[in-house]
Amino acid sequence: MSSVFERVTLRTRANVYFDGKCVSHAFTTANGEEKSAGVILGPNTELGFSTSKAEVMTCVGGSCEYRLRADEEGRAREWITRVEGESFAIEENSSFEIRVKDAYHYVCSYA
Amino acid sequence: MSSVFERVTLRTRANVYFDGKCVSHAFTTANGEEKSAGVILGPNTELGFSTSKAEVMTCVGGSCEYRLRADEEGRAREWITRVEGESFAIEENSSFEIRVKDAYHYVCSYA
Repeated sequence: MSSVFERVTLRTRANVYFDGKCVSHAFTTANGEEKSAGVILGPNTELGFSTSKAEVMTCVGGSCEYRLRADEEGRAREWITRVEGESFAIEENSSFEIRVKDAYHYVCSYA
Repeated sequence: MSSVFERVTLRTRANVYFDGKCVSHAFTTANGEEKSAGVILGPNTELGFSTSKAEVMTCVGGSCEYRLRADEEGRAREWITRVEGESFAIEENSSFEIRVKDAYHYVCSYA
């Protein structure tokens, strides 16, 4: 994924979560896709997010570790590292945890 | 100023200042103007910024108080409040202080 998006409609008021540990700006691409560009800030931040729509999180800078919701038998999943250029997907009506050592810059794409 | 910008080129990696107290995303407008959309987060944050190019800060949410650099005789200036829709200008190669109680969402336009 490119770290630059052209011809987007940008909403200039930021979305602020977890007292500023996560800040993002929402935008709509030229072909109508809803996305947000954001950052999760360390040091050693651990957050949990829930999803209503399916999402794909793509790293555009820094890194994170993520873990999806426990499986059907309630078994916790492994923590998985994501660095620049790598993505992970979260189903709709689900949740995930994320750990950030320093900073994780991302683009979130909504299904 | 609108809180939505259309047909912009957005750089998705955030700019992070003062350990995350100020986060912004840079973009270029359809007619080539360089701007950034950002937020300064409270509680009761006081920051100082210097400028290389002249800038105009426009509030798109929340509020702030700002104070430009002291005048030629070194006299401190008054703190001035800015709320949504209001702007202030800073000369090139200058500086300003800003106080934010809760949150100040802004668009910064560079000359």
